[in-house]
Amino acid sequence: MDDTQIVVFGAAGRMGRTIVRIVAEARGAKLVGALEPASSSALGDDAGMLAGLKPLGVTVTSDIASALSKADAVIDFSAPGASAMLAEAAAKAGAAHIIGTTGFSADHEAAIARAAERCAIVKSGNMSLGVNLLAGLVEQAARALPSDLFDIEILEMHHRHKVDAPSGTALLLGEAAAKGRQVDLAEESVRVRDGQTGPREAGTIGFATLRGGSVVGEHSVIFAGEGERIELTHLAGDREIFARGAVSAALWTKGRAPGLYSMRDVLGLGAETTGRP
Amino acid sequence: MDDTQIVVFGAAGRMGRTIVRIVAEARGAKLVGALEPASSSALGDDAGMLAGLKPLGVTVTSDIASALSKADAVIDFSAPGASAMLAEAAAKAGAAHIIGTTGFSADHEAAIARAAERCAIVKSGNMSLGVNLLAGLVEQAARALPSDLFDIEILEMHHRHKVDAPSGTALLLGEAAAKGRQVDLAEESVRVRDGQTGPREAGTIGFATLRGGSVVGEHSVIFAGEGERIELTHLAGDREIFARGAVSAALWTKGRAPGLYSMRDVLGLGAETTGRP
Amino acid sequence: MDDTQIVVFGAAGRMGRTIVRIVAEARGAKLVGALEPASSSALGDDAGMLAGLKPLGVTVTSDIASALSKADAVIDFSAPGASAMLAEAAAKAGAAHIIGTTGFSADHEAAIARAAERCAIVKSGNMSLGVNLLAGLVEQAARALPSDLFDIEILEMHHRHKVDAPSGTALLLGEAAAKGRQVDLAEESVRVRDGQTGPREAGTIGFATLRGGSVVGEHSVIFAGEGERIELTHLAGDREIFARGAVSAALWTKGRAPGLYSMRDVLGLGAETTGRP
Amino acid sequence: MDDTQIVVFGAAGRMGRTIVRIVAEARGAKLVGALEPASSSALGDDAGMLAGLKPLGVTVTSDIASALSKADAVIDFSAPGASAMLAEAAAKAGAAHIIGTTGFSADHEAAIARAAERCAIVKSGNMSLGVNLLAGLVEQAARALPSDLFDIEILEMHHRHKVDAPSGTALLLGEAAAKGRQVDLAEESVRVRDGQTGPREAGTIGFATLRGGSVVGEHSVIFAGEGERIELTHLAGDREIFARGAVSAALWTKGRAPGLYSMRDVLGLGAETTGRP
Repeated sequence: MDDTQIVVFGAAGRMGRTIVRIVAEARGAKLVGALEPASSSALGDDAGMLAGLKPLGVTVTSDIASALSKADAVIDFSAPGASAMLAEAAAKAGAAHIIGTTGFSADHEAAIARAAERCAIVKSGNMSLGVNLLAGLVEQAARALPSDLFDIEILEMHHRHKVDAPSGTALLLGEAAAKGRQVDLAEESVRVRDGQTGPREAGTIGFATLRGGSVVGEHSVIFAGEGERIELTHLAGDREIFARGAVSAALWTKGRAPGLYSMRDVLGLGAETTGRP
Repeated sequence: MDDTQIVVFGAAGRMGRTIVRIVAEARGAKLVGALEPASSSALGDDAGMLAGLKPLGVTVTSDIASALSKADAVIDFSAPGASAMLAEAAAKAGAAHIIGTTGFSADHEAAIARAAERCAIVKSGNMSLGVNLLAGLVEQAARALPSDLFDIEILEMHHRHKVDAPSGTALLLGEAAAKGRQVDLAEESVRVRDGQTGPREAGTIGFATLRGGSVVGEHSVIFAGEGERIELTHLAGDREIFARGAVSAALWTKGRAPGLYSMRDVLGLGAETTGRP
Repeated sequence: MDDTQIVVFGAAGRMGRTIVRIVAEARGAKLVGALEPASSSALGDDAGMLAGLKPLGVTVTSDIASALSKADAVIDFSAPGASAMLAEAAAKAGAAHIIGTTGFSADHEAAIARAAERCAIVKSGNMSLGVNLLAGLVEQAARALPSDLFDIEILEMHHRHKVDAPSGTALLLGEAAAKGRQVDLAEESVRVRDGQTGPREAGTIGFATLRGGSVVGEHSVIFAGEGERIELTHLAGDREIFARGAVSAALWTKGRAPGLYSMRDVLGLGAETTGRP
Repeated sequence: MDDTQIVVFGAAGRMGRTIVRIVAEARGAKLVGALEPASSSALGDDAGMLAGLKPLGVTVTSDIASALSKADAVIDFSAPGASAMLAEAAAKAGAAHIIGTTGFSADHEAAIARAAERCAIVKSGNMSLGVNLLAGLVEQAARALPSDLFDIEILEMHHRHKVDAPSGTALLLGEAAAKGRQVDLAEESVRVRDGQTGPREAGTIGFATLRGGSVVGEHSVIFAGEGERIELTHLAGDREIFARGAVSAALWTKGRAPGLYSMRDVLGLGAETTGRP
């Protein structure tokens, strides 16, 4: 099969350079464009060299239409306004749009939905293949295992610099578990335990938090029953997994019908599309 | 909802007594019959007392037809011939049949399939909810994660008395992974590593075995990618989880249409029915 | 070497019967006496049969002096007053005394210390070999690793019926860590984390608690540094490990000089003797 | 206390630049010299800038005597001949010498031992604090736990590119366990298990190997007994832990008497000094 022709939006930024590097290494992917704002000092530079690679023959440009004209997909971790605008341009060019940006307003969401009538858009607040897979499996396990027989606990560990608890991913996994059980996470959460707690209440979802060292991020969802236990765990070793997931999503869009897709669709878990036009 | 009326076949054996105890404790279940062969010395005894409980008012009998006449479901971990015969009796009585027996001949299988046209039968070589759930999740994860990006490894630990390796459950999980990837486990297995192995071959499924102490059984399936890892683990704490899974299956059959079901159906994972008439 | 001749005090109770069973199986140990109070209905019964074994030829008696006259060691998980009295009798008979009893008054402690001038006494609030070993290793690791480079976290999981958090063993491990660092646990403990916690403070010792299913007891002490992590874990699979540790302690006392010993002495970790006369 | 004045030998190499960076960040350490061979193209460059930092005001030089004259310690991961020569220079200058080099001949070893009569030398084939600590704890645990009651298993996982099994660190941990038990590792090792293995033989030390993804290195030593288990684990997250351990060793040598020390001495575990003059 022909390589998927990929454009990176924001190719001189930290995430952009990581994506360029991963596209250059990925089987079946080829970098064909590198975009930056008109004000960027990187215009005219080789995208490969910016990423610490040898020259790739792809010059950074600000000409979106021209870059997208050659593209199967454009990968974008930028800002809400820029992403909404880019969705429109991708739809016009017939390129797929991979959106890792977060923080959209309702207007932006609507613009993206309109664009998704004409091109495939994959949009997710967390582009990691592993975390999205885990959330899908957790939802199913929570649906399958009776809540009077199996207790759900969510454990996470992060580095010493993290300032909040539990992590956003732990809460996302809690939401997946609550959805599987058809309960409201806010009502069933037990966020801390200390002192005389009494016995565990059936149906609750417990959280526990560890902090220390340089741990990038580890999450376990535990289903603890009488005499047996299932543990579903994700371990992140570096922060490039979001870039890798975005490139996997770009490859997946090749030949895909227009629509607004989630990472669960990319994984073939289907269940949780955010809505198709 | 009315309690599910349950008969235990082989109620004086070790597994039978465990099942009696679990039925007695389970919400929504009621013991209504306890069967033993006509030659059993336990005939006439109270099934509860045999199980180390207070009397349950259920006397051990060898009269199958009479016992099944009151039953919603009969639970059976006996022998191939006895189970095939019991399936016929259950179909006649309109009771569901939960079969934990293994080692059936093709004739026995055919008899069970015929009975399943008239009653719900749940049949599995491993009745644990957790192991069956794990196998279902492993199959999906293996399907979702590209084999050039994620390596699959299966780790198991058992007590010091176990005489073979890897465990049957480890192989079952390997089969689930191979099925998800649509490959042949025998061709892709790497059973041991020692000395100069060379780099890991993409697409293979590795096994590793630990033995020691009194460990009942622990299995992990690891999907290791660049920068992230997913681990799906089952921990067995006692040997009663098969009995518990059988009771869960019995409760699930209440009001269920005739058919031959697997534990995956009980778990609502659907994918792997062994075939319905 | 000759078998260690062991008497079990309280041989008809639940713990006593467990100890009898473990002595019967242990290499190098031989049951020579079984004691119960004068009011016990088990007097005259065979200690083996009470423990669910075949007869061991040891009859339950209330005659302490006579039983101890044949003993190398007596194992005792009874009550403070009874244990203090038994220490005196053991000293008189020249038998070692293994004390798993807790809740002693200062007077009892003094009586035991006096007895320890004439016989070997091993006394511990937690007789498990594993937990005591772990505490010893944790203390050393905490001493060895600089507190500005390595963060200490303590994680525990127990069954759903446990009513307090963190567990006593988690606190014991926290004390071991604090001792290794020469800090006060109460001042350095972080017992819960929720919401905006700010970054982790160097030097603190964090706790996290999981509850669920039938988990007997799992404890991990994590030392998390930049780029590496050490985890020291104890997993309890059943509640007989206290009885097993007591039997190991009894075997260890063979030929041992008088003194008041801890389980750390039994393990040869030496550091933490509770004081020898 | 005054900062420890540190010189980095081979400051323009990959490991050297990492050490420069870690010295620059470490509390109580100050970079005062940066050495390279007379042929190096880095002579005259600022050592900080070479390491990707802002200028540190330390110019790369080949003048060993002059650099060491200001030094408390010199850190060296070079080659056997260069290290042996540097030990002599360090002894003359009264500086401590931290040696991460491996592959010494007997002559080199003798030269280093002679130098250690006049200066503190810390020498180790693995400079990670965590791995050395783990080995020390494993040795003690193996000594403390009776080999008829506790089985030892060693599990390791590394990335897919690793070409041999088990890892050198797994074997080092096996040696520590064997030393604790006073047995010969080669005689007691069980390197693989597959098929009909029979029950586990008491006293053996088992190995199991996992390979996959980008895992830097994970090692667990498991002591599995009846009803309980102890697991001692090291997780490496990056390859800089050797540089960090070397800097910790340099800080530890401040004011230290001459002698040949190991990383266990740095950790205060004492037991395993490689021999002092």
